[in-house]
Amino acid sequence: MTLHPSHRVSAVWNFAAGPSRLPDAVLARAGAELFDRGADGAAAIERPFSGAAFRRVLDDARERLARLLAVPDNYRVLFLAGGAMHQFSAVPMNLLDPARGLTRVAYADSGYWSKRAMQEASRYAQVIVVAGHAGERPLSAPATGDWRVPPDCAYCHLTANETVDGLAYPAWPDTGDVPLVADATSCFLGAPFDVSRFGLIYASAQKNIGPAGMTVVIVREDLLQRPARAAPSPFCYRLQAASEAGVNTPPTLAIQLAGMVFEWLADCGGLTAVAAANRRKADLLYSAIDSSGGFYTAPVAPGHRSTMNVRFHLTDDSLTEHFLLGAEAAGLTHLRGHRQVGGLRASLYNAMPLAGVGALVDFMAEFQRRRG
Amino acid sequence: MTLHPSHRVSAVWNFAAGPSRLPDAVLARAGAELFDRGADGAAAIERPFSGAAFRRVLDDARERLARLLAVPDNYRVLFLAGGAMHQFSAVPMNLLDPARGLTRVAYADSGYWSKRAMQEASRYAQVIVVAGHAGERPLSAPATGDWRVPPDCAYCHLTANETVDGLAYPAWPDTGDVPLVADATSCFLGAPFDVSRFGLIYASAQKNIGPAGMTVVIVREDLLQRPARAAPSPFCYRLQAASEAGVNTPPTLAIQLAGMVFEWLADCGGLTAVAAANRRKADLLYSAIDSSGGFYTAPVAPGHRSTMNVRFHLTDDSLTEHFLLGAEAAGLTHLRGHRQVGGLRASLYNAMPLAGVGALVDFMAEFQRRRG
Repeated sequence: MTLHPSHRVSAVWNFAAGPSRLPDAVLARAGAELFDRGADGAAAIERPFSGAAFRRVLDDARERLARLLAVPDNYRVLFLAGGAMHQFSAVPMNLLDPARGLTRVAYADSGYWSKRAMQEASRYAQVIVVAGHAGERPLSAPATGDWRVPPDCAYCHLTANETVDGLAYPAWPDTGDVPLVADATSCFLGAPFDVSRFGLIYASAQKNIGPAGMTVVIVREDLLQRPARAAPSPFCYRLQAASEAGVNTPPTLAIQLAGMVFEWLADCGGLTAVAAANRRKADLLYSAIDSSGGFYTAPVAPGHRSTMNVRFHLTDDSLTEHFLLGAEAAGLTHLRGHRQVGGLRASLYNAMPLAGVGALVDFMAEFQRRRG
Repeated sequence: MTLHPSHRVSAVWNFAAGPSRLPDAVLARAGAELFDRGADGAAAIERPFSGAAFRRVLDDARERLARLLAVPDNYRVLFLAGGAMHQFSAVPMNLLDPARGLTRVAYADSGYWSKRAMQEASRYAQVIVVAGHAGERPLSAPATGDWRVPPDCAYCHLTANETVDGLAYPAWPDTGDVPLVADATSCFLGAPFDVSRFGLIYASAQKNIGPAGMTVVIVREDLLQRPARAAPSPFCYRLQAASEAGVNTPPTLAIQLAGMVFEWLADCGGLTAVAAANRRKADLLYSAIDSSGGFYTAPVAPGHRSTMNVRFHLTDDSLTEHFLLGAEAAGLTHLRGHRQVGGLRASLYNAMPLAGVGALVDFMAEFQRRRG
């Protein structure tokens, strides 16, 4: 594998929340492996999804992911077209089961994306909010422990990491017999994840997996028995799990890219090593914020801070635009907070090296010296 | 632009029905343009969908497509995640309007994919079959003329080109005030298309557009007023049209690739020139079939034969596996017919040069000399 010059460590660091930075090694491989024609006269993007070559790609990606996450044998791994927002509807469409008395759905309200998920679900069933924020400042994820979910709820949904709010659950709740469902989009593969605590996990690809337009669904096999009568066929987990290469043409390019990312993660030492690296990056940035004497502030309580999406503010908000302009000039891009919450946000997904966070922390200190 | 050696005319020709061959010029561009980091420190695949760079890509792709197809001003062009099968549900979910008395849906049954579309729609409304095959052999598209669609039908759906059956409509029907909806997946951009005859056109990308996982929807603005209450937000045409870069993260890589294909089509002289080239390719192959003295047969009536998916059979079906093995050895791949209909199929989408069809026709003549 030869590295194209532009794949060397860049002087510009992209902190976008998604689509976002990919690993250098994957970028270097992707161009040639996806778009050069092989001995069969076809590039990866040109191969039929029902052919043996793509089947190998698909099986390989599935096995690599299952190994990385230690997915138990009674779960199925699906690669579906679309994003997490498609799953906001697919989850209730698949899991509601009126004939078995499962007519409502339970949600924890932890911020922006859990509210969006609830909105979508409310189209299909009554939504019960079983847990919410403890207080406004500092922000925290809902307290865990026993959530006492009503038994007529088809599932209980939580957003494992809130990309906009910058908070993450430090532990999982107990929902008894009601299956726990996680939107793990923005923390997926950033650390080990105990799949066995969940009935279903979904994560869209444009954070730690790669390309926008594909979502990983990991579903416990017993949940595939639910009727899913209202689900469009490409949304139906049972049909997708029963069909080897998918009910419909799967997003073949995205799956191939995901496989490359999974391989890179294994080369990095797996999720334990990746989590340690992510911890170092997040600690460096949160320390810089906390030791700024109040010039920068992080609104989330320490135990609930996301390692993936570090949200912070300038206490003097009138400096925010100056900060963003200066950062851009210093090669630190896409640091603007989501419009719903304002301020700043640095997304530190797996592909962001410590050097990028170092450059950000240096810029923050320099900006404070000039403006503080 | 430098051509990688593997992008030179290949000795292997891939006749897959989709995902399928891409233009050489697009393959040559794609690797570098999608995966090399620019001055902003981001490759195309790494850029946030809400940023200015991706907005330009999106606007550019939309404008190029609108120019190629001469899309009238009262239509909106959407690039949505997923495939045509997602639209099989999205169409009824968006267009049914019980409050206005639009409670049923009308379909023409022209073969495999129209039946699949009907199955999905039947989940949401009563399906009226308003037109079907005239006879079994030779196969033909439903007769057009006046289809007399009941006025309580929200729309009337046809499959413009049947990928599996190898047939295409030679003309469009008249459905009066009921909007005509076309699944144009496998003929989209293969020839000029009179958008103004339709209320809605959709086409998944993995034929003449490029990558699997994205679908183009072209919808007349008045249809955006329908309530779409049951539609998941990413399926809702009104929401998608109202939101500049999409309700949810769009498939950014696929959209960028599609834009390259649209540019290539313009460079080829636009759809009139492309249609003429496609006509020559199809004529060459159908002539070889028709002049084989019955050794090869095409089951579709001449006026209804698809120029995109040429279906044919060996009259002695026991030779089919020999043909496929020999073709593979001669560098002619993915010629097996769909399992539902058997026989052979050569997909001749825009990116297949005349030379590929020439190689196939030569092989067919040689096979007949040896086995006939």
